Amino acid sequence: MLKEVLIGILIGTVAFTVGMLLGHFAIEKVPEWVKDASQDVDEALIKKFLAELDSNEIQENLRELTKVPHLASTPGDEATVELILKRWQDPKTGLDSAWREDYKVCLSFPSKTNPNKVSVVDEENKVLFMAREKEKAYKPEQEDPDVVQPYAAYSPAGNVKGKLVYANQGKMSDYELLNKTLDLKGTIAITRYGGEGRSKKAINAAQFGIVGVLVFTDPYFINDGVVSESGTYPNSWYMPPSGVERGGYSTDFGDLLTPYLAAKEDTYRRPIEEVTGIPPIPTQPIGFEDAEQLICSLDGDDAPDDWQGSLNCTYKLGGPGFKATSSFINSTVHLDTYNTDRLENSANVMGVIRGNVEPDRYVIYGNHRDSWVHGAIDPSSGTAVMLEITRVLGKMLKEGKWRPRRSIIFGSWGAEEFGLIGSTEYTEEYFSRLSERTVAYINVDISVFGNTTLRASASPAAQSVIFTASKQIDAPGTKKSLYDNWIEYNNRTSATYGVIPNVGFLTGAGSDYAAFMHYLGITSVDFSYDYDRSKTRAGIYPAYHTAYDTFDYASKYIDPGFTSHQAVARTAGNVLLRLADSLLLPLNCSDYAESLELYLSQAVSVFEEKLADKGISLEPLQKAVQLFQETATKLESLIRDSELAKETPLKARRINDQLMLLDRAFLDPLAFPDKSYFRHVIWASRSSKVPTFPGLADAVEKEDWNQAHKHISILTQAIAGAAHTLQDGI
Amino acid sequence: MLKEVLIGILIGTVAFTVGMLLGHFAIEKVPEWVKDASQDVDEALIKKFLAELDSNEIQENLRELTKVPHLASTPGDEATVELILKRWQDPKTGLDSAWREDYKVCLSFPSKTNPNKVSVVDEENKVLFMAREKEKAYKPEQEDPDVVQPYAAYSPAGNVKGKLVYANQGKMSDYELLNKTLDLKGTIAITRYGGEGRSKKAINAAQFGIVGVLVFTDPYFINDGVVSESGTYPNSWYMPPSGVERGGYSTDFGDLLTPYLAAKEDTYRRPIEEVTGIPPIPTQPIGFEDAEQLICSLDGDDAPDDWQGSLNCTYKLGGPGFKATSSFINSTVHLDTYNTDRLENSANVMGVIRGNVEPDRYVIYGNHRDSWVHGAIDPSSGTAVMLEITRVLGKMLKEGKWRPRRSIIFGSWGAEEFGLIGSTEYTEEYFSRLSERTVAYINVDISVFGNTTLRASASPAAQSVIFTASKQIDAPGTKKSLYDNWIEYNNRTSATYGVIPNVGFLTGAGSDYAAFMHYLGITSVDFSYDYDRSKTRAGIYPAYHTAYDTFDYASKYIDPGFTSHQAVARTAGNVLLRLADSLLLPLNCSDYAESLELYLSQAVSVFEEKLADKGISLEPLQKAVQLFQETATKLESLIRDSELAKETPLKARRINDQLMLLDRAFLDPLAFPDKSYFRHVIWASRSSKVPTFPGLADAVEKEDWNQAHKHISILTQAIAGAAHTLQDGI
Repeated sequence: MLKEVLIGILIGTVAFTVGMLLGHFAIEKVPEWVKDASQDVDEALIKKFLAELDSNEIQENLRELTKVPHLASTPGDEATVELILKRWQDPKTGLDSAWREDYKVCLSFPSKTNPNKVSVVDEENKVLFMAREKEKAYKPEQEDPDVVQPYAAYSPAGNVKGKLVYANQGKMSDYELLNKTLDLKGTIAITRYGGEGRSKKAINAAQFGIVGVLVFTDPYFINDGVVSESGTYPNSWYMPPSGVERGGYSTDFGDLLTPYLAAKEDTYRRPIEEVTGIPPIPTQPIGFEDAEQLICSLDGDDAPDDWQGSLNCTYKLGGPGFKATSSFINSTVHLDTYNTDRLENSANVMGVIRGNVEPDRYVIYGNHRDSWVHGAIDPSSGTAVMLEITRVLGKMLKEGKWRPRRSIIFGSWGAEEFGLIGSTEYTEEYFSRLSERTVAYINVDISVFGNTTLRASASPAAQSVIFTASKQIDAPGTKKSLYDNWIEYNNRTSATYGVIPNVGFLTGAGSDYAAFMHYLGITSVDFSYDYDRSKTRAGIYPAYHTAYDTFDYASKYIDPGFTSHQAVARTAGNVLLRLADSLLLPLNCSDYAESLELYLSQAVSVFEEKLADKGISLEPLQKAVQLFQETATKLESLIRDSELAKETPLKARRINDQLMLLDRAFLDPLAFPDKSYFRHVIWASRSSKVPTFPGLADAVEKEDWNQAHKHISILTQAIAGAAHTLQDGI
Repeated sequence: MLKEVLIGILIGTVAFTVGMLLGHFAIEKVPEWVKDASQDVDEALIKKFLAELDSNEIQENLRELTKVPHLASTPGDEATVELILKRWQDPKTGLDSAWREDYKVCLSFPSKTNPNKVSVVDEENKVLFMAREKEKAYKPEQEDPDVVQPYAAYSPAGNVKGKLVYANQGKMSDYELLNKTLDLKGTIAITRYGGEGRSKKAINAAQFGIVGVLVFTDPYFINDGVVSESGTYPNSWYMPPSGVERGGYSTDFGDLLTPYLAAKEDTYRRPIEEVTGIPPIPTQPIGFEDAEQLICSLDGDDAPDDWQGSLNCTYKLGGPGFKATSSFINSTVHLDTYNTDRLENSANVMGVIRGNVEPDRYVIYGNHRDSWVHGAIDPSSGTAVMLEITRVLGKMLKEGKWRPRRSIIFGSWGAEEFGLIGSTEYTEEYFSRLSERTVAYINVDISVFGNTTLRASASPAAQSVIFTASKQIDAPGTKKSLYDNWIEYNNRTSATYGVIPNVGFLTGAGSDYAAFMHYLGITSVDFSYDYDRSKTRAGIYPAYHTAYDTFDYASKYIDPGFTSHQAVARTAGNVLLRLADSLLLPLNCSDYAESLELYLSQAVSVFEEKLADKGISLEPLQKAVQLFQETATKLESLIRDSELAKETPLKARRINDQLMLLDRAFLDPLAFPDKSYFRHVIWASRSSKVPTFPGLADAVEKEDWNQAHKHISILTQAIAGAAHTLQDGI
């Protein structure tokens, strides 16, 4: 018995000792946060998310958003503020929190009592012709009393008259050509949209003594030549003869009176006289049916071939003034504008989902809310998509199924149409925090131009995540992925990947990504669905900025069934989730290197010889691009060799910081002293046609060799600096 | 027996199960990096470090560094490059790595064959007087053929002559006063150091048609009136009669030809004609014994009382020219300068210790290496201290006893004397990475001015760590801590702490902290040991920038025994270790708030009424300061409530990022368009005497009310932005 007891005790003791030893180790428990810190993207969750995005919901969003015109700062705009707040504060499908942020910004409006007038008046002061004050009503929407009549925002008020000339697109070269044979002083110029920024048509004109400018959309460009009512909306997607593109007439963006400062109540406002980039002379857009009356009555020489369009005559330059055979003979054109600049309240609506692991890293998703009229496509197609994304994410969040690794910020920007004002004021007010913490900005403004293919423009760092997302989503009406469909319509050959879809560069300031990309250097992406550009000359959907951009138009001619909206929601939402949830940020620095190499090869092939003649070498720039490329390769191999989920979270954070700050490293606030807000030396806007580094291209264009050399140095330092950002060491 | 067996089995089973269960947990081992991530400052190690810093080593460093003159880019400079490289690459006491970085910068030198000349010449071209070309030799050092003769760096070469006038300190107000009674055109002005920047004396003069400028150091200011050889060096610390302060004559800093761009071989260089801020007319410094000859011969009215000094006569304004009783009657002063601007190679020496936990966070410690002559005090007293710090750290590192949490970078900057060139080029070249990753910059240039008390200037964020360090170190020759000793000589009353030592603000650009603090917005600290300023009028040690600033001078009159050097080494080293090793960065945002409140209260008391008269309110600025203060309090209570060593390392990283980026958030590259490199809206240089926000103070001074309002908005946005940086949320 003793033996058995001893054996029992022995077993017990050994077992207990083993237990104790193990227990000793077990005391040092693995902290909870060790697992949290490695939270990564969940592919199953993404699939579920994509499946829940509903085209019907998007359609109903659009219907509600476009009930009334919602021009910035009007009651219609305020109604959309409240709609979005209500959605984002919904207890079942809302976000963590949502609020409004108001700015007091300088907007320009026509007079309600004194409409702008374009008329032809003869020598006895008899009015022979008066352009329409309103677009023709085909549907009740056009009769809404809140439809703002066509005008050029920020054109000054004034009453001018003069002989008419035709100045093509209002480019400097157009006026220079006219000026060779005509005395332009005191004339009024009629110009076409395109080829030059809206306000520049008037800024250029004023340099030649022209006193007023008219602008119209040539049906050649927008309607593939169709001019008849029977061939245009409501019978097709084309612009009706009375349709007029409204627009902000300013070269800069952000509130005009408070550059670099958020436009709060007490903020210093510069006098309007100090504002450059807006028309110095009265300017007014008109429909092409009115433009035809004027242009087809002009005297003078035939305009050059590339100045001709689809109006029913040979375009002439003007005598100046009208031809003898016209009823307008000896008459002048009178342009009377009554626009006023007013300080108005404009709201951004902000919504937030707080991040679980890295709340101090932001992914921002935004679109503007204001429209010119009903704005079904521009911007409500984007807002309808955003609201569907927030509904599904909000539901997942409120049901406790998900909280992102990083914080997500949604922005519904105000007063974009007047010059990207809401988003710009936001970046000004929160400049430091956004610069420090923002991983990426996703913009979906016009979500659907047409039904053919995905379209994306982005910082090259984001190309790969766009591709990943687009491979997971079906292209509506096809059996292909968005990616495979896209590659058919718009591709390029990459040195690394072969033939791939063509992601555009964000070199312009066409929507609210501008302040993020150019001013703050935040990796940005802009998504939409597009029509087949090989089948039409239309540069944009024809109802753009007219009173015909309605729910009726959108649902009949742009996206019946709303499946293209849905495809965009899925793409943007997928990219958003990957940016917010991935342990390793899905940003690719080698793709950036490839873009720099592309720009460099352009610079070498077009400029190298010219520069060498002046003793200027591109070699430093070549070396910097090479350094960048090598550094990118090194970082990617470090990433490949890491098991981030098992290593210290500080390692993933370190690499992610390098990727996040990559675009920031290209900023130089003094590189373009005359281009407000453009600080990104690679993607800043460019006048030159050569697709390469903007500061260099524009300097070579102007044959300013000192400036060219200086920009080579600026670029060299910025690109080497971006390489340093990617370097782990010191 | 069965019972016993069963009991035995039962015990065994239970024990084993317990063991298994515990074992199960023990399988999930705590990863090694969990402990690493909480690496914190080790007080015992700091004590050991402080004890090892050796005054004899510092003395021997100084002796070696000052063997020969080491003017930037000369062979003497090159020898110090090699010395430092050798130390930092030493296998037993060196750093992880060290290397040199070369820039090609624009320096200015006098001619070796054609010395600059200041003479008095009579009507028959007879030279009546010639100022010394060299300072008088009292020791072999002054006879070294490599002593550069006194000159004003960047003064143009030229040969001018004119009647002499005395223009006090060369301020605009000085010339304006002279100009009331005298025709200044074509005259030469003699001025005193002080009251105005070196180059501005000449820039201001040129506006009155003055053709040349002489500068001297009035013994009233530097020598407490002592003028005799018997009372000056080598018999005391005072400047000998022939002593001349050399200097860089430029208002800007960094290489003059490559602003914002690192001066590499191929970098674009603007033409020298585009450089502003340097003397437009020949300018030359002379000794006070020569100045006395000139000033005491002047004709004209007595100069105002505050223009008088210690030369042996009543200073007069000049006829212009000399008085009838003087032997110089009817003579003119001739100034012949032969300086040339040359592109020369200047090296920074860089040394690095890689961080263990956060290698991508940098603490930078630096000092310049170049001197005007032997530069024992300026800058070698600082370099001697830096080399002792790196020796002790290197030893700890090589012995495997220590590796810092964060990376440490040491910089031995080149060509500081010509305008902070080496450090500025470094910040330009590595702008992105340094902005992203640098926690703080510590500068120790002249480490010892005297033997009385510690002196520190810093961003307010660093005040607390400076206090912590200074409380742990004994003040040499006392039984008190540096802190307690300091508080006796230089204190202020803080709203939070009561009476504390006075840490100065870094509002100027007096040493290499300038580019870090003002251009990059990096929290910076500048240390030295000082004399008792209540006992002398000397604004700086009297041998400053002369050929008398030698090892002999330093060891006899500035710090015999080198204990003050040692105290500075201990203070700067302690602060360095705390910044590099602390889990939570020892930066205090509430102390920053207190400084902002101080500036605000100044602005309110001096400007509020004037501004209100113009309809401008300080309220937005007050609100921003209040927001900052509240946010700082909140962050500090979050820190108090945290156990960072036990929580996810991402939390400490997040808070540390907020603290690191605090000073960065005050940057606005467009706030001061005419002050190159000054971007920090709180600490930028200021012309106004009111100790408050510089942009606002200077605008009110000029009665430019639009500018004042604009600066209130700039400040409001920057201070609110800095508060946002401290906010955890979105």
